[in-house]
Amino acid sequence: MRRAAFWISAAMAHSIVTIDDLSNDDIEAVFGLADRFLADMSPEGRLRRIRGRCSLAQDHVLATLFYEPSTRTRLSFESAMLRLGGQYISCADSKVTSTVKGETIADTVRVVESYADLIVIRHPWEGAAQVAADYVDVPVINAGDGGHEHPTQTLCDLYTLRVGDGRAGRRTLKDMTVVLCGDLRHGRTVHSLVYALARLGARVIPLPASPDLDFPEHVRRRLSRDYNFVPLDVAELPDASLPADVLYITPEKPHQLSLLESDALNVSIKLLTKKEQQALRDIKGVDAFYATRLQVERKEGDAGETSYPVIDREFLKQKPYRHSQVMHPLPRVDELGYDVDEDARSVYFQQAANGVPVRMALIASLLELVPAALAGGAGRRTNYRVYERPNTLRCSNANCVTAQPSEQRYLGQKFWLVGEAMPTVRCAYCDYEQEPKVISSARSKRYRLDVSSWKSISADDLALFESEAQALAAGYQAKKLTGREATATQSI
Amino acid sequence: MRRAAFWISAAMAHSIVTIDDLSNDDIEAVFGLADRFLADMSPEGRLRRIRGRCSLAQDHVLATLFYEPSTRTRLSFESAMLRLGGQYISCADSKVTSTVKGETIADTVRVVESYADLIVIRHPWEGAAQVAADYVDVPVINAGDGGHEHPTQTLCDLYTLRVGDGRAGRRTLKDMTVVLCGDLRHGRTVHSLVYALARLGARVIPLPASPDLDFPEHVRRRLSRDYNFVPLDVAELPDASLPADVLYITPEKPHQLSLLESDALNVSIKLLTKKEQQALRDIKGVDAFYATRLQVERKEGDAGETSYPVIDREFLKQKPYRHSQVMHPLPRVDELGYDVDEDARSVYFQQAANGVPVRMALIASLLELVPAALAGGAGRRTNYRVYERPNTLRCSNANCVTAQPSEQRYLGQKFWLVGEAMPTVRCAYCDYEQEPKVISSARSKRYRLDVSSWKSISADDLALFESEAQALAAGYQAKKLTGREATATQSI
Amino acid sequence: MRRAAFWISAAMAHSIVTIDDLSNDDIEAVFGLADRFLADMSPEGRLRRIRGRCSLAQDHVLATLFYEPSTRTRLSFESAMLRLGGQYISCADSKVTSTVKGETIADTVRVVESYADLIVIRHPWEGAAQVAADYVDVPVINAGDGGHEHPTQTLCDLYTLRVGDGRAGRRTLKDMTVVLCGDLRHGRTVHSLVYALARLGARVIPLPASPDLDFPEHVRRRLSRDYNFVPLDVAELPDASLPADVLYITPEKPHQLSLLESDALNVSIKLLTKKEQQALRDIKGVDAFYATRLQVERKEGDAGETSYPVIDREFLKQKPYRHSQVMHPLPRVDELGYDVDEDARSVYFQQAANGVPVRMALIASLLELVPAALAGGAGRRTNYRVYERPNTLRCSNANCVTAQPSEQRYLGQKFWLVGEAMPTVRCAYCDYEQEPKVISSARSKRYRLDVSSWKSISADDLALFESEAQALAAGYQAKKLTGREATATQSI
Repeated sequence: MRRAAFWISAAMAHSIVTIDDLSNDDIEAVFGLADRFLADMSPEGRLRRIRGRCSLAQDHVLATLFYEPSTRTRLSFESAMLRLGGQYISCADSKVTSTVKGETIADTVRVVESYADLIVIRHPWEGAAQVAADYVDVPVINAGDGGHEHPTQTLCDLYTLRVGDGRAGRRTLKDMTVVLCGDLRHGRTVHSLVYALARLGARVIPLPASPDLDFPEHVRRRLSRDYNFVPLDVAELPDASLPADVLYITPEKPHQLSLLESDALNVSIKLLTKKEQQALRDIKGVDAFYATRLQVERKEGDAGETSYPVIDREFLKQKPYRHSQVMHPLPRVDELGYDVDEDARSVYFQQAANGVPVRMALIASLLELVPAALAGGAGRRTNYRVYERPNTLRCSNANCVTAQPSEQRYLGQKFWLVGEAMPTVRCAYCDYEQEPKVISSARSKRYRLDVSSWKSISADDLALFESEAQALAAGYQAKKLTGREATATQSI
Repeated sequence: MRRAAFWISAAMAHSIVTIDDLSNDDIEAVFGLADRFLADMSPEGRLRRIRGRCSLAQDHVLATLFYEPSTRTRLSFESAMLRLGGQYISCADSKVTSTVKGETIADTVRVVESYADLIVIRHPWEGAAQVAADYVDVPVINAGDGGHEHPTQTLCDLYTLRVGDGRAGRRTLKDMTVVLCGDLRHGRTVHSLVYALARLGARVIPLPASPDLDFPEHVRRRLSRDYNFVPLDVAELPDASLPADVLYITPEKPHQLSLLESDALNVSIKLLTKKEQQALRDIKGVDAFYATRLQVERKEGDAGETSYPVIDREFLKQKPYRHSQVMHPLPRVDELGYDVDEDARSVYFQQAANGVPVRMALIASLLELVPAALAGGAGRRTNYRVYERPNTLRCSNANCVTAQPSEQRYLGQKFWLVGEAMPTVRCAYCDYEQEPKVISSARSKRYRLDVSSWKSISADDLALFESEAQALAAGYQAKKLTGREATATQSI
Repeated sequence: MRRAAFWISAAMAHSIVTIDDLSNDDIEAVFGLADRFLADMSPEGRLRRIRGRCSLAQDHVLATLFYEPSTRTRLSFESAMLRLGGQYISCADSKVTSTVKGETIADTVRVVESYADLIVIRHPWEGAAQVAADYVDVPVINAGDGGHEHPTQTLCDLYTLRVGDGRAGRRTLKDMTVVLCGDLRHGRTVHSLVYALARLGARVIPLPASPDLDFPEHVRRRLSRDYNFVPLDVAELPDASLPADVLYITPEKPHQLSLLESDALNVSIKLLTKKEQQALRDIKGVDAFYATRLQVERKEGDAGETSYPVIDREFLKQKPYRHSQVMHPLPRVDELGYDVDEDARSVYFQQAANGVPVRMALIASLLELVPAALAGGAGRRTNYRVYERPNTLRCSNANCVTAQPSEQRYLGQKFWLVGEAMPTVRCAYCDYEQEPKVISSARSKRYRLDVSSWKSISADDLALFESEAQALAAGYQAKKLTGREATATQSI
């Protein structure tokens, strides 16, 4: 890409769009640096510096582009930059920016990269941060893209899991058992978090507030495909007794009953199999309990009268949570009681506070203000082959950045070929997966419905469609089947 | 309270929620410091520093959280912080922040205190700044909470009264005569100001634009109770001749007639008694004339066709104002004529300009960047006893922070017992007073309507209600009266 | 004017309201300084400073007051100030500021000048920046006032024309041929630009998207009157053959046909006369092609289905544009294709990037942080005589700052007497011109309709009206004509 500002280094910048843009070692490196910044921020640390201001980032400007409301993420990035001795510029409201004149993401960030050394972007469309990173030469940090990912919140979460309130010894994340509770469908924070926990070897127990608030299909698929990871699902385990350190919903008790009084939320709690008990045997109790609020703004249709589980003092009296950290990405509404605030297990304000040292460490690393550079990429999913033939398959996610007319002026579809036997594709922007129903050679323009033979077409020549109609509309024609193929098709 | 960020000093921070959080000596200390900053800002001062930037606050970050529109207050705080060598982060629009997701004040500030060393908050609810101060360990400055207080504006006002345009000698506020004109009901600036003037020994002449725009009852009560102060009320003084230095409305003149053409505004100007003349004898003319705009955004119902007094060149020709400073907290609408701008008596732009040195001094004091720390509290009202029994009396102010469903998740009622003979209570957040109609022992749960005996119930056991219905709803029952009590009740 | 803050220098500040506030030499001085800042920003420059932060503006605060949406202008000003070592305060949304309480421009800036050393203002009303500059003692920079001017965008444009992408040698603007294409009516950027190009001796070819999007009358008049400049107008040249290096629309080609399919846009392309060919003979091709978007927010009535020319790869294949820089002030919508982004001729992102060094240079010059001060004013239009009699002529532009009720509290009409034979006036705020239909002596109050004799009335005594009705309403009466005058009037 041609660079607008010649003074920007042509070296490929390291952007953080997904938590997978940091390897496990990278995460450790960031945390080690965060430890140092945290120590500097203590009253003793301040005295040690004799009120000398940190000047690490003194020549640098951070841009925060927030197209969705935010308090903690934007302010903590800005505070982190200031604490590093740097400066920031900010667009904190989409109505304030030129997007009201119809400007695209790519244009906006290509302008802003001339004004800042690092761009932090929050956007309502899934994949927006990836687009931003693709179009500029400065590092881009995803501060939340729709319901997709929010990797720096995950860094704060992991750091909090590791250091607690700053006085506990360091803990290892491996083999930690984490319950994820609430709205797992729309919450981008739990998406990035579960990917990281999967990679780092933690155990994850999802506890969706209702079946329709469980992890979306594409998240479970990515967990399985990229990390070979399956969350422990209490709700679907048949005919066995749940070990005490995992049983956290007991619908007989009045409190929980009230949570589940809506039929829609009538989660049928079943018990673990012998096999599952085996898998869970060395779980010593839940290390962390991570609650989230209902993402009303992302919920389609009527938010309605959904009941939502409330974590409060009564709830936390249950045995499995005796030593559980209680976490929440904040803001909360009613799902986390204020009577837990003073409880020693509550660390949600620490999560927010840790945003400063963690983001300082991330900024310093990405701007290469400290010697220990990030390796990068090692955490990335296996490098799948790319599929991006124009005028064929489209991402099925209506909130994907590639589905927006304004962005389609310059942005095409891009998929990873993640399937093996079947030609499953994953949108390179929003991670939604789909199975094409029609394949073709792009040269011959003769499509067929038997997609199992997709590997017989070379990657360069492959064309994929979601339906015959789509293939026909693109000017493709049905392939005249050979006798053997016709027979095979009939037998299906 | 558990602290989210271990690096925040546990020492009780000095917050400025009401002007009474500064003693008279504190105010003098802040002004002395402001004098020094003001001198530094002069062209000569700048040269003296040979363009060296002030580095007093170089390691500090200020957060401005503004949930209501503002230009001068927010910008002057931010400018003051920058002039001190510090930095700021800002939420300047409630729509931009997580409050749109339903976050409470307590949660927001507990997060922000990890990002900043000092929080400046403006909020539409009365008492919001007190809640903020209660929930964090960093200093909080109230930049306006509904119609309640705006103490830093008062500091700017007092400083301007004292130094004028920066070239006059210092004046003493004691025995100064100040006319407060306009909307005294909704204007938080005149509330904080009149408390300070009362404490500092000035004379105050309220001149409400109409009877319903006079000081609200709770302000007059606090003036009387806490400072033993009664404003001079020209409108209600019967049958005497007004001395020239106070007579500022002459309805016979066409200009003022036009102001009062609405019947609703037909202020009946009556004259002073001999006794009042006595009290006014050493008033040598009005030292300052403080006009305010109609607080349309806080006026209930239709702002309507209310006339409003206009202070202009013609008005100021009157004898009592010959040497009066003309003040206004700005912004103005039509109540202050532009033809007064060039008049030497006008100091309203100086008021705004003084916001920088005064706020620099306040910030430096609260952050303890200068040796002379504030004593604090000495200006506070007498320490009344606290009443905060749940599920009993509620604050009667619908705009009080305690009346908001979102905040009631964590915030209870809290009152000061300010009455003597009768059990009058004052809301600890918004200062509204009320007289409970029902008292009870909380142990016996037997209420009575004869509240005069309230002191016979120990403070620990006291329960107060605004009505029998409220007491009954709370599970209390009427006390079976003894013969003597029944007789006493009947005789009332 | 009385100054609110005594520390502000009384010396007349140099404000940039129109591009004419900079002489040609000033522009060169700013560009020379920008070259230095640009060099400093390169990776090599950064190393040279060994990460030392620029401290030129370390004691200074910039205020950005944006009453209209903006990304690039506001952020580039703020970034420029930070890169100079200074700081900024910002109001980026009119809804956030006290204007919602009804504050005037004059009041706002008089307050803000106490908080900042330099004010950058963007406002929807034409002439707003002039009002701001008139009321404060700190420099004011116009960042766009309605459809009037946007001089710093013009500086970026000129700098880009001169340096291209930073690697080409410096070019001279004299005799450069620039096509201005698109919405020339509402676009303030092209207004400031065409004035500068006129003064600097460039050739300008306007190519409005439709006849009603051509330069407005007052712009053409100012070009003619102040710079003796007439743009080359291809659309109105009759009966000749257009030389290849100017012919850029060929309606026969499908692409252009599609642009012009709307009847309303049916630009009749006619050809150059011999005389015009003569004038164009040394044009060697178009040096720069400057496209703009349709200013929907300024277009009166329905934006409708207007077609709009699209500059894309196909378009740029035409011969005249072989070496044309393609420029655009951004943001773009559909009028500039993304397929041009990678083209070496495209410099629109450079335009945006150049905003930083150019604005650094301008700020440093206005704050006198560098020795080479600006001469100023030399670029200003000839000093016309002023006409500002109250209660007579009013500016005919409904969007002029003088037409707003809020500003009329303090702001009168002010015109330049630009006419010679006839008493043409030009609004001193928005540049709209009009011809008064009635003249009078203000002393005699006897008006006449024969305006040709206007010079017989002394400037001190002149009163102008747009109609008899207006004169009568102002208390003037028809002059009893002498016999000779009556005859003259009849003969008209």
